[in-house]
Amino acid sequence: MLKDLTTLTPLELRHLIRQNEYSGNTSGLAAGFTQANLVVLPKDLAYDFLLFTQRNPKPCPVLEVSDVGSKKLTEMATDVDIARDFPKYRIYEHGDMVKEVNDVTDFWRDDLVSFLIGCSFSFEEELLQAGIEVRNISECVNVPMYDTNIPLKSAGRFHGNMVVSMRPIPEEQVVTAVRVTNAMPKVHGAPIQIGDPEQIGINDIDHPDYGDAVTIKPGEVPVFWPCGVTPQNVIMQTKPDFVITHAPGHMLVTDVKNTTLKYM
Amino acid sequence: MLKDLTTLTPLELRHLIRQNEYSGNTSGLAAGFTQANLVVLPKDLAYDFLLFTQRNPKPCPVLEVSDVGSKKLTEMATDVDIARDFPKYRIYEHGDMVKEVNDVTDFWRDDLVSFLIGCSFSFEEELLQAGIEVRNISECVNVPMYDTNIPLKSAGRFHGNMVVSMRPIPEEQVVTAVRVTNAMPKVHGAPIQIGDPEQIGINDIDHPDYGDAVTIKPGEVPVFWPCGVTPQNVIMQTKPDFVITHAPGHMLVTDVKNTTLKYM
Repeated sequence: MLKDLTTLTPLELRHLIRQNEYSGNTSGLAAGFTQANLVVLPKDLAYDFLLFTQRNPKPCPVLEVSDVGSKKLTEMATDVDIARDFPKYRIYEHGDMVKEVNDVTDFWRDDLVSFLIGCSFSFEEELLQAGIEVRNISECVNVPMYDTNIPLKSAGRFHGNMVVSMRPIPEEQVVTAVRVTNAMPKVHGAPIQIGDPEQIGINDIDHPDYGDAVTIKPGEVPVFWPCGVTPQNVIMQTKPDFVITHAPGHMLVTDVKNTTLKYM
Repeated sequence: MLKDLTTLTPLELRHLIRQNEYSGNTSGLAAGFTQANLVVLPKDLAYDFLLFTQRNPKPCPVLEVSDVGSKKLTEMATDVDIARDFPKYRIYEHGDMVKEVNDVTDFWRDDLVSFLIGCSFSFEEELLQAGIEVRNISECVNVPMYDTNIPLKSAGRFHGNMVVSMRPIPEEQVVTAVRVTNAMPKVHGAPIQIGDPEQIGINDIDHPDYGDAVTIKPGEVPVFWPCGVTPQNVIMQTKPDFVITHAPGHMLVTDVKNTTLKYM
């Protein structure tokens, strides 16, 4: 790749990815535009899952749901092919990952429904613009994520606890961090816990259950947000016959600006 | 009724209604607490309807969805019987209203799903508290509502145009009215149009399609909000075999305060 990917529009990026000319992660691409997580389920699970997201909007903020069998979207992007425009996908059977591929056209079925789910990339950009350092970005690692004891509201076959992400925030910036993220409910919204990991069942903050540990400096408070890993975890616990997701960090770059997600 | 209903708690009101000791409208009761619209559908329509509300959250803000067959709630109220705690219900068959009753226990089926939908009563109270007169309250009439040319996003069997409510607002208070209602997306949120009814297909503002006309004084601007009549209209257009709704104005009084709906 000789092109500077960061100068491409969302549409140019999707075309490049669709033609299999880029299959890397999408972090930092198309700055200002929303990136979305993907969960593709058979229709017979779709009602329970949609209801689960309705009951648990903070960890499971749905940006758009496709029509049954369709690979198209209308809200988050036009000129889109859900089966090809993510750089990398994971295919699960009975809860086990069986394949990682760049294109799921050959696996598509007429009974599949695609859920696009909001991603913390969107609010991290807002935090940076508010002058708040995002430690996982500074340290070039994945955000640390933890299982918690926070029960989710069940819906049909889906139940489980919330997964949270953690970002250390200087004490004097905690209020700003709450305010900035609260304004973006479609990308997880305000924190769920501030400063007391044990209260939500996290006993060892240096060993996250997913992602990487980050440095917590003196004067910083660990702040916990509902995390988009939650819906994937909850689905996998039910071991459905067939599920497609994006590969972590390999998102859909949409045509929608982060700022338009505020107070949606 | 010798009791002063306005001093009763939501739970006391629901008990009174459950025992058929009150079957009037709920306007002005349990001030500060959220009241909810009701749509009860057979499960085979529930996915399409839930998806319709996901795609059209401003006219169709869902507060809670029951489990299939259940008359209970967990979020908006506990100690609740969905089939008895609304003062009055309407029963529809094939799109026609066939009955108005105070209790739908005898009509209940194991395949029914209840949708509680946000109501503009909640934001009218916020407008009043912000010093904005709500004309339909001052004139003791129903809010005027209009069919529009604003297309909704389809979902399965459900499609149609938005219905809006109108409140005349003094020019100098329009910004405040937008700000106050924008903060309450779970009860329709910000206006959809300000000051130009013809732009949304309303040609005679003095003759609303539903509710009553209200006075528009010199210096006032007609402001239009997405309206909770929309989902009922859209459902009836599909002429489903069986639907239960609340009777207009005869809402569920919930245990949830209006203020907690802000930025949900």
